Amino acid sequence: MKENNWLVLEKKIKFGDCDSAGVIHFHNLLRWAHESWEESMEIYGINLKEIFPSMKYDTKKIFPIINCEANFLYPIEICDNLKIKILPKKINNHIFAVNTTFCKDKIVVAKAKLMHCVLDIINRKKVDLPESLELWIEASNINNKIESC
Amino acid sequence: MKENNWLVLEKKIKFGDCDSAGVIHFHNLLRWAHESWEESMEIYGINLKEIFPSMKYDTKKIFPIINCEANFLYPIEICDNLKIKILPKKINNHIFAVNTTFCKDKIVVAKAKLMHCVLDIINRKKVDLPESLELWIEASNINNKIESC
Amino acid sequence: MKENNWLVLEKKIKFGDCDSAGVIHFHNLLRWAHESWEESMEIYGINLKEIFPSMKYDTKKIFPIINCEANFLYPIEICDNLKIKILPKKINNHIFAVNTTFCKDKIVVAKAKLMHCVLDIINRKKVDLPESLELWIEASNINNKIESC
Amino acid sequence: MKENNWLVLEKKIKFGDCDSAGVIHFHNLLRWAHESWEESMEIYGINLKEIFPSMKYDTKKIFPIINCEANFLYPIEICDNLKIKILPKKINNHIFAVNTTFCKDKIVVAKAKLMHCVLDIINRKKVDLPESLELWIEASNINNKIESC
Repeated sequence: MKENNWLVLEKKIKFGDCDSAGVIHFHNLLRWAHESWEESMEIYGINLKEIFPSMKYDTKKIFPIINCEANFLYPIEICDNLKIKILPKKINNHIFAVNTTFCKDKIVVAKAKLMHCVLDIINRKKVDLPESLELWIEASNINNKIESC
Repeated sequence: MKENNWLVLEKKIKFGDCDSAGVIHFHNLLRWAHESWEESMEIYGINLKEIFPSMKYDTKKIFPIINCEANFLYPIEICDNLKIKILPKKINNHIFAVNTTFCKDKIVVAKAKLMHCVLDIINRKKVDLPESLELWIEASNINNKIESC
Repeated sequence: MKENNWLVLEKKIKFGDCDSAGVIHFHNLLRWAHESWEESMEIYGINLKEIFPSMKYDTKKIFPIINCEANFLYPIEICDNLKIKILPKKINNHIFAVNTTFCKDKIVVAKAKLMHCVLDIINRKKVDLPESLELWIEASNINNKIESC
Repeated sequence: MKENNWLVLEKKIKFGDCDSAGVIHFHNLLRWAHESWEESMEIYGINLKEIFPSMKYDTKKIFPIINCEANFLYPIEICDNLKIKILPKKINNHIFAVNTTFCKDKIVVAKAKLMHCVLDIINRKKVDLPESLELWIEASNINNKIESC
């Protein structure tokens, strides 16, 4: 089932990700955390066009971030190959968190956490998580018990 | 009329704009060119919420970029204070260009050009420039004749 | 002393800051928090070229972020004018935090916190805060007691 | 030799790449052009740590961009899978260009061109292309004759 694994991704650090201190400019890590969330859902089988708003598709819910956090444990530098491990958690019916752990050669170099709420796209009231997201979270938590960084 | 001048703006280079070669990472210049266009229109008196699409406002036209170009003449470094001079040109009824010149201590260090077309937001067909943009372009060209970097 | 105030800054939201959900893409807030820190130090009188590494200046210390966090309380949209209030805190001899509060029409719409450590640029060992940063933190804490959003 | 192909890469459009008009925010294309250049060199076998400056490695040359250009032919939207084709050209002993073509379902949707010069990292005078880059350009031009989008 290796090819279907939606919880361990990879990322290569690019020149433009780093600043003149020679390490990644910090907020890029949060961008990668979001992109990893997207990638994970897609590998799992969710059609992202049904998740994210665009002018063409009639999405009903949006997932704004209400809190995000990142910890930087070791320097991340150009050309580093990071392994990204994802673990989502349902907090309640309309809030979920996505935890991401960034590893370099088996060492955890950074962690990020994005907390999303689920809102109706029109009236911006809290609504329940869509079923596809519920399933992705459940499957991730079952699958995650047997994986390691 | 100095305070109302919508054609000469300022920009201070930040740490995160630069890469490990110690100069701005090139594509940021194009971001500033776009932001300068926005700022110029707003100082001139255009309500940007009527120009750019959002979920709340009922905009009718969009302005996708069909071509962009930038020239880098001298290094741009952290803490540099740039003066940005703007000169738009109407190309035809549905295409216009925004030229930006970036100066440091009276020396031109970079130039950028963004070429936009005007499309109907629904059917994506070419439509005429909105009147507010036409007026901004005309006024800019008259005003620009008496300004220098 | 209004003109010299280094603790209350302003930021206008641009088109490119927002995503297709019509609000700012979340990690931009952390970029602005960092840029606000830079701007605040500069207004206070610190020469940023002595703070941030470049190829031309012989800086001795770097200030990598070890933790960052952001809370989003209300939507931030294109053309919003934000007032940014800054409050730094010294944690110990080699760690400090910069708190930023983003207000729209007197309402707090978001908060960010960047925690930096101070390292020797060569051997990457922990070192004391530079004197200029110590003074900026002290002055900010005295000044902040008489300000409000 | 499919696995070793350094001239045709892939890119998936993310939510954060797009703006509220529902298409990619234009300057991201130039970021991808640069990242594709990096990725291509690396797949070919160049050690990027010898190419890009950092605090740890003793690079001798830098490759600032002197001109960049992009053309947008068709909308690029979230979840689009782009195929990126690269073709570098040596202009003279110290200038080279990297052309990138972005295809969606065999249709060219955008093109970018980055023109780099080669400078000594210390005195910033023009110097010759490093041998590794010369070889990558040569091999790319030979290889490219038998490839198509």
